[in-house]
Amino acid sequence: MTEPTPIHHPNPAGVKRVAVLTSGGDAPGMNAAIRAVVRTATFESLEVVGVRRGFSGLHRGELNLLGPRDVANTIQRGGTILLTARSSTWRTPEGRASGAKYLREWGVDGLIVIGGDGSFHGAHYLQQEHGIPVIGVPGTIDNDLYGTDHTIGYFTAVETALDAVDKLRDTGASHERVFVIEVMGRHAGHIALDVAVAGGAEEVFIPEDDKPVTDAVEIVKESLAKGKRGSIIIVAEGYPGGAQGVADAIQAGTGMETRVSILGHIQRGGSPVSSDRILASRLGEAAVYALMDGRSDVMVGRDSGGICYTPLHETWERRKDVSRDLYRCAKTLSV
Amino acid sequence: MTEPTPIHHPNPAGVKRVAVLTSGGDAPGMNAAIRAVVRTATFESLEVVGVRRGFSGLHRGELNLLGPRDVANTIQRGGTILLTARSSTWRTPEGRASGAKYLREWGVDGLIVIGGDGSFHGAHYLQQEHGIPVIGVPGTIDNDLYGTDHTIGYFTAVETALDAVDKLRDTGASHERVFVIEVMGRHAGHIALDVAVAGGAEEVFIPEDDKPVTDAVEIVKESLAKGKRGSIIIVAEGYPGGAQGVADAIQAGTGMETRVSILGHIQRGGSPVSSDRILASRLGEAAVYALMDGRSDVMVGRDSGGICYTPLHETWERRKDVSRDLYRCAKTLSV
Amino acid sequence: MTEPTPIHHPNPAGVKRVAVLTSGGDAPGMNAAIRAVVRTATFESLEVVGVRRGFSGLHRGELNLLGPRDVANTIQRGGTILLTARSSTWRTPEGRASGAKYLREWGVDGLIVIGGDGSFHGAHYLQQEHGIPVIGVPGTIDNDLYGTDHTIGYFTAVETALDAVDKLRDTGASHERVFVIEVMGRHAGHIALDVAVAGGAEEVFIPEDDKPVTDAVEIVKESLAKGKRGSIIIVAEGYPGGAQGVADAIQAGTGMETRVSILGHIQRGGSPVSSDRILASRLGEAAVYALMDGRSDVMVGRDSGGICYTPLHETWERRKDVSRDLYRCAKTLSV
Amino acid sequence: MTEPTPIHHPNPAGVKRVAVLTSGGDAPGMNAAIRAVVRTATFESLEVVGVRRGFSGLHRGELNLLGPRDVANTIQRGGTILLTARSSTWRTPEGRASGAKYLREWGVDGLIVIGGDGSFHGAHYLQQEHGIPVIGVPGTIDNDLYGTDHTIGYFTAVETALDAVDKLRDTGASHERVFVIEVMGRHAGHIALDVAVAGGAEEVFIPEDDKPVTDAVEIVKESLAKGKRGSIIIVAEGYPGGAQGVADAIQAGTGMETRVSILGHIQRGGSPVSSDRILASRLGEAAVYALMDGRSDVMVGRDSGGICYTPLHETWERRKDVSRDLYRCAKTLSV
Repeated sequence: MTEPTPIHHPNPAGVKRVAVLTSGGDAPGMNAAIRAVVRTATFESLEVVGVRRGFSGLHRGELNLLGPRDVANTIQRGGTILLTARSSTWRTPEGRASGAKYLREWGVDGLIVIGGDGSFHGAHYLQQEHGIPVIGVPGTIDNDLYGTDHTIGYFTAVETALDAVDKLRDTGASHERVFVIEVMGRHAGHIALDVAVAGGAEEVFIPEDDKPVTDAVEIVKESLAKGKRGSIIIVAEGYPGGAQGVADAIQAGTGMETRVSILGHIQRGGSPVSSDRILASRLGEAAVYALMDGRSDVMVGRDSGGICYTPLHETWERRKDVSRDLYRCAKTLSV
Repeated sequence: MTEPTPIHHPNPAGVKRVAVLTSGGDAPGMNAAIRAVVRTATFESLEVVGVRRGFSGLHRGELNLLGPRDVANTIQRGGTILLTARSSTWRTPEGRASGAKYLREWGVDGLIVIGGDGSFHGAHYLQQEHGIPVIGVPGTIDNDLYGTDHTIGYFTAVETALDAVDKLRDTGASHERVFVIEVMGRHAGHIALDVAVAGGAEEVFIPEDDKPVTDAVEIVKESLAKGKRGSIIIVAEGYPGGAQGVADAIQAGTGMETRVSILGHIQRGGSPVSSDRILASRLGEAAVYALMDGRSDVMVGRDSGGICYTPLHETWERRKDVSRDLYRCAKTLSV
Repeated sequence: MTEPTPIHHPNPAGVKRVAVLTSGGDAPGMNAAIRAVVRTATFESLEVVGVRRGFSGLHRGELNLLGPRDVANTIQRGGTILLTARSSTWRTPEGRASGAKYLREWGVDGLIVIGGDGSFHGAHYLQQEHGIPVIGVPGTIDNDLYGTDHTIGYFTAVETALDAVDKLRDTGASHERVFVIEVMGRHAGHIALDVAVAGGAEEVFIPEDDKPVTDAVEIVKESLAKGKRGSIIIVAEGYPGGAQGVADAIQAGTGMETRVSILGHIQRGGSPVSSDRILASRLGEAAVYALMDGRSDVMVGRDSGGICYTPLHETWERRKDVSRDLYRCAKTLSV
Repeated sequence: MTEPTPIHHPNPAGVKRVAVLTSGGDAPGMNAAIRAVVRTATFESLEVVGVRRGFSGLHRGELNLLGPRDVANTIQRGGTILLTARSSTWRTPEGRASGAKYLREWGVDGLIVIGGDGSFHGAHYLQQEHGIPVIGVPGTIDNDLYGTDHTIGYFTAVETALDAVDKLRDTGASHERVFVIEVMGRHAGHIALDVAVAGGAEEVFIPEDDKPVTDAVEIVKESLAKGKRGSIIIVAEGYPGGAQGVADAIQAGTGMETRVSILGHIQRGGSPVSSDRILASRLGEAAVYALMDGRSDVMVGRDSGGICYTPLHETWERRKDVSRDLYRCAKTLSV
């Protein structure tokens, strides 16, 4: 094998300048994605405009040129150097028209939006109404986007939650207590399921499943009977009643000392783990190439075949299921 | 300098066998303290009896011999291998009489209790009523024991809370939000104050101080005016109203998006940091030597002069204040 | 979606008792794999025999029953509770005959070997000569086994190396120095490549590629010219001359202060990250099912289609290439 | 207790503008110290000039104003935002004269130097020759400065080394190997001793002690005889022969597989732990106050009495010994 010579990507769309923004909830790895956009563009002799504060900044004209040194030493940083915000103005045609005007003034040939499905809605309407090419990059810790095996930030969020579970297990096992731990995931149990398997939890409750909270009571009783010291139960925030509901049921049904821990926003922060940095690097690069290829209104993602493209509207219309097989495995291994 | 030859400690009390237990809330470094007790005793040719589940296990007779290999590979472990529990029976004379009987049956010459002031109460009464020598070792994350500069577990708890603050700052700065973070400390602001200084927080609320919650509103307004992106406010759990009260006031007074994070029990877990392991090693050793010296009813601690001894009752009767100077510094540096 | 009911796996091979060992260099996640074997077997009402010290212990008869509680609280532990060793005796027919005798005495219906290709050789010959069914589980940090996308331990090793790179970048950027960092990988550049992309390195040298060490001189000169503060160069240990050779060339060619860091065995240790724990859980389960299905002389792995099976001899005869595309990306993004 | 009102420090020296630089090897917490200097000065209505690249930048005139927002979000960062360098020119009277000229041009009333004893030499001569007030702040991971209990960066370096020891113990225990680990400390065994106690090492070799390398052979033999699985030996880099010498002796004397790990520069990097951030915050503040008090040619430090001042020349002329008591404890607990 010899070193691959980086060759320049063809540019049939004649792109000269791309814009990039981050939108919605921040996710670890967003900086790595911004960096990849800027560096790839630089390699291809394109210019990059950074938009601050997402769509909120776009309709107010917070645009600036971003060079390759501006993103130096950012790949390991949590958060987003471009800032993010939620914007109600963007949901109005006037807001989007104002954004389109700024993009035209800056001579932007395409916009890359790093965020979740709410952000992709915003991008989709910009393209529909103003014809500006847009590419979505999946950046959200929840991993709930159809069209990519994983989203940027997901791996780090799982790792942060798992670290908390390991810590709680120390204290739970010492006190022979039950810990009910709520992880992020308003609509999806991806984080919860991974954390349950990796954390050796006794049970997991996710929004995709309708099993009753009383199942937890049986599990905890069985654990005691098997001689387990303490139990760990994982609950996704979207499960009805949340961790508190599950804990109340256990306390009522077993009399065991039951503690609740709601991990919350720490799951959004921290230096991204390697898998998120690599995924962000690949998708940031792919987003620039997609614009050069003349693509628009699609999200770049990665599946087993490599880079893939999904129409933006499918990312919210279609559902990415959790793995039934992993769900089953979680139960088998807690025997 | 030449290597100090470990010399054997004099044993005027003629101790042959010591018992050790952990009690109350667990704290990182308790295993390092148990290990130090066992290893020091072994070095001095004494035997060690480990009591499981604290005073609860003591009055039920859960005693076993502990050898030096039983504590191998535990110095880095969170929690306590001897388990811990709270015991209502121990608060009765009958419970303590039962514990005393077991200690006599096992030929124990003295009991080492690793825990907080509640546990020291239990030890104190055992010694008062049954004449069994007892030594306290300060093991609690709150650092609220008079008679020692620091308690075992405190350093790790601060580090865990600080790691969470760093993560929340990532997301807070990206969204330009206020984060109000509640750390442990029911009666004391030690953790909160250290975390506030080390985390670069804008403000800190502790139970020792009676300042009104509305101070937070002013601080957040000033921060905005200075151009700070987001604010971090630390609240000890013992501050009236807790983090939620502070956050409600900020939201009402500024209209800024304010998020609450209650770190909770993760602060008890995790592998102990070096300072806790070293402190636990020193105090565990000192506890065995204290029994050999014929001491009883005292807690071993460390202050600037080295090992010190404080009557158990003083540990709860006297108060260890937070550093006014550090409190002042927290404010100066948030300018 | 409803919760999948764990259903029992068919057992056409009539397996009643399986043995498990870890062999070769240890890897984070081996304990999670052992746990998965034990728990899956328990769920399926099979018994498990744990062999200590790998093949070395097998031919000496170090076998013991392992129950589900024996693996409690191990999923997060580095190393291997079954210990590992390299065995020259196992390379002799007499050694293997002795191991086979012990397995028969213990009534073992199949042996699960967690390790790398050297260990799979040992398993293969045992099956060839004595007809004992064997299943390989890929446990090695190097990720250099054909037949699985990833090996157990790989993700953690990358993360550990990346953490070191982040730390060295702090000091490298402050001093405007070049750091040449050697990561594990005697025959393969998988770790090096992932760390290079995730660590934002300027260049990477891997054994699969024959590019000359002098390329590093050009890269460092270009970095300086672009205004970069310090450079990070990643070298896999199998690249001829290693990190020291690369550093010597840079120092000679540029006069810049160049430091070498050889990360070494820390990459084998530490609590496994979630991806390794999950992979180990899946593969440990799959190994038990493979024996129940009557399979033998194969390695269980995971690729995009899920669980897959590869004849053991192919795992060392065929080569798993590093991703050319990732290699190219590493260069593009260091622009 | 009521909240302490921050009161303004008296300024008899009439200081209006202070300069700050970092010099020598970087240490985690240097940024926290810079931040404390800037924020304290701001609170006191003084101005701050930041000097880049230490004395090397000073004699070349790399000076800039630093405001309170310039140090926002830096308290948790490793390295130094002011950069550091070693300067041979500064060792010449001409170099220092050039630096003095720039400080006068910028109207600087005093210079704060964050670094080790080499840097304090440089500061001392500047003050001697040009009458510019200088204050030293102890910033070095080695903790080898007389006049302060701890130096900024020391706690983090110990933690980083300890984390590596924990990882190596995982693999060492699995393979029943000896690991000889070299930590930083060219002239002092502080890091080595703390890491040995906290890491549960079997033996430690430090430059302050002249014990022969063959002691390690006895220790390893005894460990084996006691049934320990693997041994951990810590060696400070300043011990003659280093880790390699110790390992060679063990291998020759016991035949056991012995591995060397030289941790190197990773000990300089990483986000500072809380103790370093707090120490840096206190000392940075104290340095500004020292200038306002009219002090010069001293280092600010912390001992049991709080802030203390030591003439710069004493910091290198006098020796800070390692704790004999801790050294003894390390041996007792490895029984």
